[in-house]
This record gives sequence, structure tokens and C-alpha cells, in this order.
Amino acid sequence: MLGPGSNAPDAGDAADPALLERLASALPRNALLVGDAIDPRYQEDRRGRYSARPRFIARPGTTAEVAACLAACNAFGQTLVVHGGRTGLSGGHRIADGEAVLSTERLTLLGDVQPLTRTVLASAGTPLQAVQEAAAAAGYQFGVDIGARGTATVGGNVATNAGGIRVLRYGMFRAQVAGLETVLADGTVLSALRGLDKDNAGYDLNQLFIGSEGTLGVVTRALLRLHPKPLDEANAFVALSSVGAALALLERLRADVGSGLSAFEIMLPQAYEGVTGFLGMPLPLAARAPFYVLAEVQAFRDDQTIERFSQSLMEALDEGKAQDAVVSQSSREFQALWTMRDSCADYVRTRDHIMGGDLSVPIHHVEAVLAASQAAVRRIDPDTEFIVFGHLGDGNLHYVIRTPKAREAMVAVYALVAESGGSIAAEHGIGIDKKPWLHLSRSAAEINTMRRLKAALDPNAILNRGRIFDTA
Amino acid sequence: MLGPGSNAPDAGDAADPALLERLASALPRNALLVGDAIDPRYQEDRRGRYSARPRFIARPGTTAEVAACLAACNAFGQTLVVHGGRTGLSGGHRIADGEAVLSTERLTLLGDVQPLTRTVLASAGTPLQAVQEAAAAAGYQFGVDIGARGTATVGGNVATNAGGIRVLRYGMFRAQVAGLETVLADGTVLSALRGLDKDNAGYDLNQLFIGSEGTLGVVTRALLRLHPKPLDEANAFVALSSVGAALALLERLRADVGSGLSAFEIMLPQAYEGVTGFLGMPLPLAARAPFYVLAEVQAFRDDQTIERFSQSLMEALDEGKAQDAVVSQSSREFQALWTMRDSCADYVRTRDHIMGGDLSVPIHHVEAVLAASQAAVRRIDPDTEFIVFGHLGDGNLHYVIRTPKAREAMVAVYALVAESGGSIAAEHGIGIDKKPWLHLSRSAAEINTMRRLKAALDPNAILNRGRIFDTA
Repeated sequence: MLGPGSNAPDAGDAADPALLERLASALPRNALLVGDAIDPRYQEDRRGRYSARPRFIARPGTTAEVAACLAACNAFGQTLVVHGGRTGLSGGHRIADGEAVLSTERLTLLGDVQPLTRTVLASAGTPLQAVQEAAAAAGYQFGVDIGARGTATVGGNVATNAGGIRVLRYGMFRAQVAGLETVLADGTVLSALRGLDKDNAGYDLNQLFIGSEGTLGVVTRALLRLHPKPLDEANAFVALSSVGAALALLERLRADVGSGLSAFEIMLPQAYEGVTGFLGMPLPLAARAPFYVLAEVQAFRDDQTIERFSQSLMEALDEGKAQDAVVSQSSREFQALWTMRDSCADYVRTRDHIMGGDLSVPIHHVEAVLAASQAAVRRIDPDTEFIVFGHLGDGNLHYVIRTPKAREAMVAVYALVAESGGSIAAEHGIGIDKKPWLHLSRSAAEINTMRRLKAALDPNAILNRGRIFDTA
Repeated sequence: MLGPGSNAPDAGDAADPALLERLASALPRNALLVGDAIDPRYQEDRRGRYSARPRFIARPGTTAEVAACLAACNAFGQTLVVHGGRTGLSGGHRIADGEAVLSTERLTLLGDVQPLTRTVLASAGTPLQAVQEAAAAAGYQFGVDIGARGTATVGGNVATNAGGIRVLRYGMFRAQVAGLETVLADGTVLSALRGLDKDNAGYDLNQLFIGSEGTLGVVTRALLRLHPKPLDEANAFVALSSVGAALALLERLRADVGSGLSAFEIMLPQAYEGVTGFLGMPLPLAARAPFYVLAEVQAFRDDQTIERFSQSLMEALDEGKAQDAVVSQSSREFQALWTMRDSCADYVRTRDHIMGGDLSVPIHHVEAVLAASQAAVRRIDPDTEFIVFGHLGDGNLHYVIRTPKAREAMVAVYALVAESGGSIAAEHGIGIDKKPWLHLSRSAAEINTMRRLKAALDPNAILNRGRIFDTA
């Protein structure tokens, strides 16, 4: 049997004709693509890695069509890769030989915002940004934001438990999910979309699918929680002498604006200078420093939260606890700072010889892990470039290194992360690319338990086989 | 095979001697109780229902001892009821013929509060109140509070996803769990206690055990999140003409104090008058009304939150939107109002012919469901007493009725709840007592999926067999 990542060039590119016939009868004409009808975009990978030619693309447009596709593929043992926006950063959407694609791109219904329950019902293929815009138009805010918002889909966000820049205040995607509809590999539809604040009637099955990277079922719809829209917001970019100084600033801002603090991002100099150069934007700060923070505050009533935020930063400057700072004075300035941070991932993709870790470290160990890992990597290649940025408030670093010895260097970083009690996969998941290191963050007993759950819900292992762990 | 609730009087009261020998060698002397050494308290049920004599009581004091007990019982097919504080309200802890007890009462280690991560590590048998007090002593607040705080344990709270009075602000027990250690039926120890804010390295197995009522594994330790302790707090008791008026007050308070609003409870007249009579306390309000609300506010800095809360209530009174209101002016008055609310459950237990529903209804349907259900119940018995109270802010009603036709009446209530999109088990779980109605809140596909998960993790069904659903 060929697992994902296998390179056998001509193997298994034809689906069983009887399966294709069954699918063709279950789906509208444009919803089953075979042969030359398959657009190359399904094989794209942002990092240019190998992706096989899929046996077919099934594009169901309703939950019932998803169920019919899965039941058919399950009966024929046809493995499927579930595709949302294909923005995943761990390679889970790459196609292996013999696999077909189930794309959620035709599941795009987005319901009306429900003010009474502060929710909105979104089909799996809805882009995150469409949810954000619908929420904003109705006077609400969606709690999760990530750089890939325009392409990433709700289904993919649920499947990977997306994080991003406002986890500090609103939690991961898991915290936004009030209900889910999911289809199991055998076509069983689980509809748990009531969205009650309290509902302890048996297991909360929805939790199982969030973050399982499409290996346990296909999410078709999600009932999403909305938050009040801020009356006002501001951000600031701050130069700091150390991670310790950044964490002290985090505590200071928390004391001064409480839960108004909605993001606390970090950039190291090579990320900051690289991305501003990439964007051709003027540097927002005159001072150079070893660490930079982008902090955001949201105000929900006329209670001087924004003023307290500015004042808190000015006091930090006066006391020498920060080296330089700029607070956005307009929505243009606010957006410019976020564009700089958002573009880090695009900047990284312009560079060669890079490898990206998505690390989570207990926040009080970030300073030590950063220092020790940089030293370890420099022992492997003293010229390594560290394009490090991320969500310091969550202890989450996007630890991108540029060196011809990237893999060896990253292994050294992972070892230090594991030693600190951190995770080698904070928000991007395991997919295929991080599988070799899953054991650093999960015990053999945990991985074996994941396998037992996989076998219970997808006994033929047709869904995203070989993602997260090997089933066979 | 005898399931829980079976009444065969003398059946199966002896454990396999080889199993007892193996347990005796795995546990300290005082940790295995057999025969006359078994205290009757293990068989107590607050509602006086049948509880069989257990074959033995295993009282492991460490995770390793829990694992050894489970592995032994699994090998012998010995079914176990997991006991925490035995305060559950759905009968899950009642012992059926042939069952033994695994009690967490010796798992009582409570770690130091960790200010850097705002967490505390608690063993399963730790009473909730001990966690609350440890948090308060260190300057923090624990987010969940329930009336049974002095006896209910952390393990039981996790297993049942406890709710209570501050879900409005802090969420269910699930939201307090940063990490778990759990032992599977075969003795496998799953230790996921890192407590990272972001950790997407494979399935979040912890979520599966929260709210599974001890049927999938035995929780041995929980890493619990702490919240900032309020600088100040106040509550108010308000008389209102309708549920609609109560919900309008909820919106008004949310607009005026935002997330400072930490509880919004409802009491109907027979609950209010009953519990004040039971406590022998003076009525806090002069006015009589069809609905009463107990609201609480917490202030985290010197920002006039408490004043805005009082002013908001006074404006509601002035505008005729509330009929009467009293705001606590001292911690004594604050406590007195909470004692009244907390004591509702004790008051209920003094009454005969009662049956309690733990209902969750979409908040905008509460008024209609209350009216329709009271009418339906009165058609069955016009003299029914409605001792209704609960967490209006969460749409959660403790719907206690007193009538000789209680079961027939409750069936009518459940039907209306299901029709409204509500749940027949908001926060007390299913246990044994609510099993007949699980199908009103969960589809056959969902219940079947729960069975598949149960079979995957506990193939011999030794853990809390027959709770939530029948396995055989």
C-alpha cells in the first residue's frame, strides 16, 4: 500500500470505474472531475513539494452529497484527501499516489447572522474572511484572524483548530465553535448544530473533530460564535531589549487595559527588516532593537481603554522599559502595522533554504528556548538567518530558519522545545511534514489512542490517511 | 448480564478472589475495602434510590495505583463505578449489582498555584472548594462555582463538565481545563498536562474525557486555569414582570457593564418563597412578582463597574422595566443573596414527589417553553408546584416539579424542550436517570458514535457501564 509522500510516479492514478459510476450518479455533472478536467490547482503546494495527480476530484454541494461520496469511497476503499482552501502549512492537503480529492469548494452557504444567539452558520467551504465580513456588517466581530483569511475555509479552520493573532483574547478556533455538522467515513451524518451554551447530553462529539485534520470526519457546516464589535481599536509597535522586557510589557498592558488587550505579537530583527524591505514600507520605528512587539487593544465602550493603552506604553518608555514605540493614530496606520505582521509568511516564501517550525513554549521559557536554540543552530551553521515572528502572548513562535542545513538545525530546535515542555505544533498542526516529530509532543500511549479513535470512526482509513500519524 | 438499575437483590456481590488478590498486592492495606469494611456512605444516594452493595471499594492513592486497579479489573471483566464526591444529580454514581467502586478519595494532592501560567494542578479527589480557596489565597479566582462545592471533586467536575453560576462569564468546566491526566480502562496512562495555550500536535484527547461521565477513562489529575480575582463584586435581586423583561435586563446590564456581568440567575415564585421559608430568612424584596433575577457583577480595576451596575438597575426601575430591586451593600448582603440561590437544591430535597429536569433552551425560547410547559403540566395535574430556578443567562433551567404524576409531567416538559431545540441535560449529565430521554437531544447516529468511541477505549465496558447509554 502506498502512503502519502510515496513517489511512485505512475502508480494508482485510475479509480475503480464502478466507483466513478456510483459517484457520477450521486453528484451533479460539474461536481465530479476526472482526467484532463482536473485543474492543476488541486496539486499546488505553496512550498513546491511533490503532490500526486489525484484519481478524481469530488466536489459535493450539499451535506447529502458529501455523505454519498464518502459512503461510496468507503465501500471501495478509495482514500480521499479533504481540501478546503489548501493554505495549510504542514502539507496535509498534498495528494499521495492513489488518493482522490474531496473538495469543499461548493459548500459555500453562509447564513444570516443571528443576533439573538450571536452566531452564524457557515458551510465548510466558506472563506474565513466572508465570515469576518458578515459578522462586521451585522455589528459583530469574529474571534479568529489569520493571514490566509481570504483563502482559508471554515472547514479547514475547524479541522486544524486555527489560531492566529487574537487567541490571547478570544481563544483558538475551538472556542468559536458552537456547533458542527460532520460526516463520518461511512457516510453517517452527525448534526450537532443546536449551539446551546450548556448541553451535557452525552459526549461532546464536536470536540473530537476540531483539530483532527480531517482524519476522523468531514466537517460540512459550523455554527460559529460572534463577539461584540469593538467601538474603537488601536495598535502599537514597540522596540524592546529582551524577551523579558516584552513579557514585562505584556503584564503591564494586562494590568492597565485588562481583557482589552487583543494581540501581542513578536518579531525578531531579521523578520522585521526582511518584511519591511519586502513590502517596501518605511520602518515604523527609528530605533533598532533585538525584539519588536506589535500589540493591539480593543475598546467596547467609552471607557478610555485606548488612552490607557497609549499611556501605559508611554510610561514604559519613560521608565526605560521600552526602547521605542509608536501607537497607531489612524485606521491607515493601524492597518499598516498589521499588514507588516501579516506579510511575514509571504516574505518567508520568497526565500530559499527555509524551514519553518511552529513552536509553542511555556511563556516563561520563551527567552531561554530562543537563546539556547539560536546557539544550537549557529553551532550547525553560524550563518543561519532567523526569521522568527509569532504570537508571544500565546508562547507561539513561527521559527523560520534559513540555512542549507535547515532540517538538521530544526531537529536541534525541536529537541529544546520538547525539553521545555513545549509543542512542536502550536497552530499549524502535524499534517505530513511534522509527523517525524509528533513523538516529541505526544507519548506513544497518546498516539496509540489516536489510532484507536481513527480505527473506530474510519476503519478503512479512507480519510486523510497518513496525516498526523501512520495508520497501517 | 446485569445492567445498572437492575434490582436482583443477592446477585453478584462477590468479586473473583484472584482479582482481589491482585488488587491487594497493587494497593496499600487501607486502599482496598471488602465486606464489612465497606462504609455505607458509598451506597448513599441523595434522592434515596436503590444502590447495590459494591463488591469492593478500591481507593488508589496515585496514578500508578489507578492504572494497576484498572488493568486488573479489565483483565477480570470487573465493572467499576467511579466515585468522586457522589454529588451528581443524574444517578451515575449509584451502584448496580456486580459492580465495584473505584473511589478517587485518596487522590487529594493540590499543587501550588503557578502565577506564571495562572494554573493549579489538582488531583481528581480534590474538592472544588479547595481549588477555589487555593486560587483566592494566591490572588486568583477559579471560574466555576456550584452549590456542591464543598463535596464535589475536580475529577467529577471534569467528568461531568460542571457548569454552575458563572458560565455566563467563564464558561463550563471544559473551559477551565488546561491539561488532564487520564487512565484508560486497560491501565494506559494518558498524561497531557503541559497546559500550553496553543498545542495542535494531533487530537486533543483531553476534550474527549470532559463530560464523558467516567465512561471513557478515569481522570486522575487536572491542570486548571485561574482567572484574575475581582477587586470588587456586588449582586442584586430584582423582581420582574416577565421572562422578556428579565432578558431585556440582561441586555441592558451587558451594555452597561460588559463582561463584568458574571451571573444572571432566575427564580420563580415557588422557588423563591420556598427557599426563603426553608432558610427562615427575611424576603429581600417587598414586591411580589412572577419572576426574580439574581445578577452579579465583578470589577477588576477602579473603573466604576459596580456603580454602573447599580445605576443600570436604578434606571430600569425608574423606567418601569423592573418592579423592585435591591443591590448588595456589603459582603454580608452579597453572601445572603447567594446563600438563598445556593440553597434551592437543599430546599428541593426536603420535598416529596419531586422530579427535576435540568433543561437548556435557546434563550429566546425560554419564555415560550416555560409558558407552554407549565400549561402542559397543569393539564396533567392542575395542583403541580413549579420550583423552577436556574441560570437564565445560559438558558439553563432547573425545572423541578412537585406532583404525584411527576414522571408523566416531565415527559411533557421534555417534549417541548426538544421541540424548541433545547437539551434535556444542560449541566447535570445523563447518568442513569436521564437515559430514557437521551434520544430527545441526540440522534441515533450520535448515540451510535458514542458507542463506537466507548468500544474503542473501553472494549470490555468496565467503566461506568450503562451510564449515558447502554453498551450491550
